[in-house]
Amino acid sequence: MTEKSELQIRICFVGESFVNGTGDPECLGWAGRICVSANQKGNDITYYNLGVRRETSTELKNRWLQEVSYRLPKEYDGRVVFCFGVNDTTIENGKLRVTPTQSIENVRNILSDAKQLYPVLMVSPLPLADDGQNQRIADLAKQFALVCHELNVPYLNAFSILEKSNIWIDEARANDGAHPRAAGYAELARIVENWDAWLNWFEETGNCP
Amino acid sequence: MTEKSELQIRICFVGESFVNGTGDPECLGWAGRICVSANQKGNDITYYNLGVRRETSTELKNRWLQEVSYRLPKEYDGRVVFCFGVNDTTIENGKLRVTPTQSIENVRNILSDAKQLYPVLMVSPLPLADDGQNQRIADLAKQFALVCHELNVPYLNAFSILEKSNIWIDEARANDGAHPRAAGYAELARIVENWDAWLNWFEETGNCP
Repeated sequence: MTEKSELQIRICFVGESFVNGTGDPECLGWAGRICVSANQKGNDITYYNLGVRRETSTELKNRWLQEVSYRLPKEYDGRVVFCFGVNDTTIENGKLRVTPTQSIENVRNILSDAKQLYPVLMVSPLPLADDGQNQRIADLAKQFALVCHELNVPYLNAFSILEKSNIWIDEARANDGAHPRAAGYAELARIVENWDAWLNWFEETGNCP
Repeated sequence: MTEKSELQIRICFVGESFVNGTGDPECLGWAGRICVSANQKGNDITYYNLGVRRETSTELKNRWLQEVSYRLPKEYDGRVVFCFGVNDTTIENGKLRVTPTQSIENVRNILSDAKQLYPVLMVSPLPLADDGQNQRIADLAKQFALVCHELNVPYLNAFSILEKSNIWIDEARANDGAHPRAAGYAELARIVENWDAWLNWFEETGNCP
């Protein structure tokens, strides 16, 4: 059987505005909410939120290691959850901020390096209230799945769940077209906190028969 | 008369574990709580928590500008709240991690640079459940007041309020000797959110007679 342990772990959440929780008046976002839940189950989480608004995967590639390694020294139980890619799909001045080919190379580089240092999880880029951009995000979310499979990094395609969510999409539309508010983030939190790869971080196989 | 405006502002909170909210099962700490309150008053806060456990003022001096400027580009209304110094007063291997003279030089350097770039507030280092170290923190909190006065940076000596607080000290003692839990952080949040320098960030002088 498995038993819940009470772990002291330090988790860095790395990504863009959706990781930051932009739009959530409760200042928790989905990342804060899943850590609160883990604490309620008896764990002791140090919660480092490293979401930065507007950041692309190219920018994140150049930033994450310095900020994460500063917060997760070797002597502690440190872990990393990534969620990024939406800003790559934005068109500015008539062209994509980051091409799909480059996005895929970025995620491969980031996860290849990260998994050698820490336990790593990856959540897909998330939907907006914009059908055209959502098509590009959906394509990227599928490509990221292949990279994660190849690298053996657990991957949650939250895009394909949330694109059908009235809560997430309606809140985003009523807010700024991109970011939900408390209910949307709470919905995503429920999805992530029931993901087996996340739950596995807090379970150990006991010695009971 | 003054009127409350509804501001879109981005705030970086920079410091050590007390800024991170370490020990708070609700994952908000005092920084998250005061942003939630500001949102409840109709503001739209982007909340960047840059607290890092164990960090001294010397380490912070070398880190803050890169992380803050990355999150607060010039085109947005960005602000910075600092709170640090406790870890300087820890004795390791028979000596202080940072001497008071160096701590004071650090805070002067950090705030001198920061105030040229952003509106800045400073909260004093905070008490632990350790009388000996608290004496050193109290001395530092007074020295930091002089530096902030000299630089015209608003300063809140939260140490002198919290050292008399049963909530803060008792929670810290019952927890790990250093960090309170939800009630302690909520108490500090109430102190900061009623500080006139914080309130002034959200008020504008109207044109009414």
